[in-house]
Amino acid sequence: MTVGAALDLSHHFSVETKSRKASPLKSCIHLFHDPNIIFLGGGLPMSKYFPWDNLNVQSPLPPFKNGIGEVPSGTDKDTCHVQIRRDETTKAGDTIDVPLSRALQYGHSQGQPEFLSFVKEHTELVHKMQYSDWDVLATTGNTGAFESALRIFCDRGDTILAEQYSFSASIYAAEAQGINVFPVPLDDHGLIPERLATILDNWNPEVKKPKLLYTIPTGQNPTGSSLSYERKAEIYRIAQKHDLIILEDEPYYFLQMDEYQEDPSQRKTTTYSSHSEFLQSLAKSFISMDTEGRVIRMDSFSKVLGPGTRLGWIVASKQIVTAFLRLHEMSIQNPSGFSQSIVAGTLNRWGQDGFLDWMVGLRQEYNEKRDVAIDALHKYVPEDSVFHVNPPIAGMFFTISIDSSKHPEFATKYESKPELVEQAIYNKVVESGVLIVPGAWFKVEGETQPPQPAESKKELDPNRIFFRGTYAAVPLDKLQDGIRKVGIALKEEFQL
Amino acid sequence: MTVGAALDLSHHFSVETKSRKASPLKSCIHLFHDPNIIFLGGGLPMSKYFPWDNLNVQSPLPPFKNGIGEVPSGTDKDTCHVQIRRDETTKAGDTIDVPLSRALQYGHSQGQPEFLSFVKEHTELVHKMQYSDWDVLATTGNTGAFESALRIFCDRGDTILAEQYSFSASIYAAEAQGINVFPVPLDDHGLIPERLATILDNWNPEVKKPKLLYTIPTGQNPTGSSLSYERKAEIYRIAQKHDLIILEDEPYYFLQMDEYQEDPSQRKTTTYSSHSEFLQSLAKSFISMDTEGRVIRMDSFSKVLGPGTRLGWIVASKQIVTAFLRLHEMSIQNPSGFSQSIVAGTLNRWGQDGFLDWMVGLRQEYNEKRDVAIDALHKYVPEDSVFHVNPPIAGMFFTISIDSSKHPEFATKYESKPELVEQAIYNKVVESGVLIVPGAWFKVEGETQPPQPAESKKELDPNRIFFRGTYAAVPLDKLQDGIRKVGIALKEEFQL
Repeated sequence: MTVGAALDLSHHFSVETKSRKASPLKSCIHLFHDPNIIFLGGGLPMSKYFPWDNLNVQSPLPPFKNGIGEVPSGTDKDTCHVQIRRDETTKAGDTIDVPLSRALQYGHSQGQPEFLSFVKEHTELVHKMQYSDWDVLATTGNTGAFESALRIFCDRGDTILAEQYSFSASIYAAEAQGINVFPVPLDDHGLIPERLATILDNWNPEVKKPKLLYTIPTGQNPTGSSLSYERKAEIYRIAQKHDLIILEDEPYYFLQMDEYQEDPSQRKTTTYSSHSEFLQSLAKSFISMDTEGRVIRMDSFSKVLGPGTRLGWIVASKQIVTAFLRLHEMSIQNPSGFSQSIVAGTLNRWGQDGFLDWMVGLRQEYNEKRDVAIDALHKYVPEDSVFHVNPPIAGMFFTISIDSSKHPEFATKYESKPELVEQAIYNKVVESGVLIVPGAWFKVEGETQPPQPAESKKELDPNRIFFRGTYAAVPLDKLQDGIRKVGIALKEEFQL
Repeated sequence: MTVGAALDLSHHFSVETKSRKASPLKSCIHLFHDPNIIFLGGGLPMSKYFPWDNLNVQSPLPPFKNGIGEVPSGTDKDTCHVQIRRDETTKAGDTIDVPLSRALQYGHSQGQPEFLSFVKEHTELVHKMQYSDWDVLATTGNTGAFESALRIFCDRGDTILAEQYSFSASIYAAEAQGINVFPVPLDDHGLIPERLATILDNWNPEVKKPKLLYTIPTGQNPTGSSLSYERKAEIYRIAQKHDLIILEDEPYYFLQMDEYQEDPSQRKTTTYSSHSEFLQSLAKSFISMDTEGRVIRMDSFSKVLGPGTRLGWIVASKQIVTAFLRLHEMSIQNPSGFSQSIVAGTLNRWGQDGFLDWMVGLRQEYNEKRDVAIDALHKYVPEDSVFHVNPPIAGMFFTISIDSSKHPEFATKYESKPELVEQAIYNKVVESGVLIVPGAWFKVEGETQPPQPAESKKELDPNRIFFRGTYAAVPLDKLQDGIRKVGIALKEEFQL
């Protein structure tokens, strides 16, 4: 298949990006490795002054026969020994390891070759890219990548679009930068394309149009919803029509599960006869539909390997990747060399298949955790016109949605204010020894100048509040006990 | 001695900082470790899903008897074995290691306790802080910390002050943000206090006054100069008078050397009978003089351990540290857990004394490198009215300053334009197989609306150009050969 090149989207760049000059120093660091040049050009310490050598770390060995979460024995039978040497033995990129002498040096702001080649191959495997000039760049994870994206595209006073409840660190980062975050309505299946279209078609011509849609398509934070292929295709068409960039935040992509079955006898965790069957089963991403380079995909190891790696990557057109690179050269420079060395050393030993084996194993763990959580919710929290639980098919979060107007003291003690009921429930639940988080913490409250369509939708019922819980952070017994306590607290609060 | 508290400097915060809300999610992450709470609050993966265990790395063992740069044998005699386990054995901060289960988890945006306690103790040892409510915060190094500082204090259209030649990534970062960088003249001894005073005393009242002075006091980049105690004290007084924040960028602080002696028989590298004698010998920092909390010190491991750690720290008042923390929670979150774990594990095993031993050893290495470089410059580059070398007493850089008007073709081929001579020399030197860097790459060219004092100073001679070289990046033989080639190229270019 012949594929085309990405569009030039530089008209969306911020004043900052447009006025950023490339550092000439960065442009000559590569000469440090040129045997024909004596490099007196930059303050690079000689690697013999780096005080570390022989970095060893153990990881489990694919295909992870004992499942994910088992400590390997240390023997070659089930243990992958990652050994990082100090010195380069071959040319950069020819080996599977980033030697410490390079990992700990300046340079490679885009990421170390051994890291980039792995995630590039992974991206091609999973998303089968549909335009020619795409590239990847190492990030410190999606929070950092999102903040960089705002700096790259937005000026103070600009508007971006986001799901009406969204990851609060992202929303607060945008608001602090003076960016208006305009909410797009959600239902149990995620962002509603028709609502997005109506908002954009009716955009107040006196207000600058949004440049960018920020979305968490899989296991949305906080609502736990996931977008279907049909919705994504529709949203992508709307983005084309209105020249929107789609910023796809995908930390939970590989935590896709089987649909929840209420009857335990009907449950079976899907197994895959091959890696390609597993890949086939995954939701189609926005980037996989992108023929024009208008999607920026943010991938992260935080949820699948460990948040403290502070390592992730973006996939985007070369033009956009270059804009990130220029900003990173003057800010983070690049993610930690230790992180890149250890992650690349591990993944390159596991191989692409091994990494997918890890994801399959992880998916199985979260499948079970999700089932235990939803079972407990069904057992301890009444499912009726007051309370509603939407079993997620991806990610780490469940929500308990509550009709606050059904609270016996709604009109009296709480003055018909849903937010007061929400606060009271939060206090009650925390008092009982469990932490779940009020939906209000995630509410996107940017100005909504354009006319809001008058359709009546359950998700916009102003009396509906919700709480976000997670099945990720604690073992199964604690999870059940926590949800039991939540149930007791809710029933007490509603005098049931 | 009773010390006071820092001033409230929040009037200097940017609109962004003033409008930034703290993320409620971050404020409850600590409950993850609370035994009385079942944590269903945030998407923290369980640490058993982190695929790493038993991280081991070797470093040399203090007091580094064989000098810095020797590979340890691997035996306990000269090798420090850093072993990081997966699980916490005691309370955070009670141990010298950051266990992987915590290093790789979310949380501790300010930095891991074992890392912070080491750099805090180090700061107290070296700088003997003079006000009460100071604190430290982990950064990804000084490039990142500087960029954060700009976001925290500056709005588009603000002015900051910087040395008239300065680190280009910093200057370009500021310019891209729409910040005017106003140059303060330098001489061989660094920033000139009288010139700073004149600039501020005569500031155009119609232009917003600068909030911040950015300075590299030790081994200044690119000029190699270092500020004396007297100049620093004077600059601090000026900062008080004009309510300036001083941003002290100190990656080269521990690369302080003996003064260069032209006669090799007069040379002896100073040895220290105790660590306190070594500490006494060091230049007094701006932060050590600060009684009001108006200095932000940026420290980095890039030049003393390795740039790829992407780890450093700032020292500042708690108010300012909190502003960095709030920004980092929405951008980098925190430096890599692997980096913090390995660096803290190494430094806590070395101890404060061991870390100072490392610095003494490193200082000795750079002393020798500086001597070899300056010897070679004296041998191969004529020292006369055309060429001038200023032997540095700190850092990684030397400069060759050149009177471009003495070029035989200055008025003809180069149309009396110093920048054309500079470019021609650069091309000639690179052709000869050496990279040194034109001073023009570092020139601060912000608008200079306020009246410039009319004093005639050599450093402002418009025909003087300079090149920055480094003795850091190559071994001694290559260093000599490189400078020899530079000398040949210069003499050829000037037809000497």
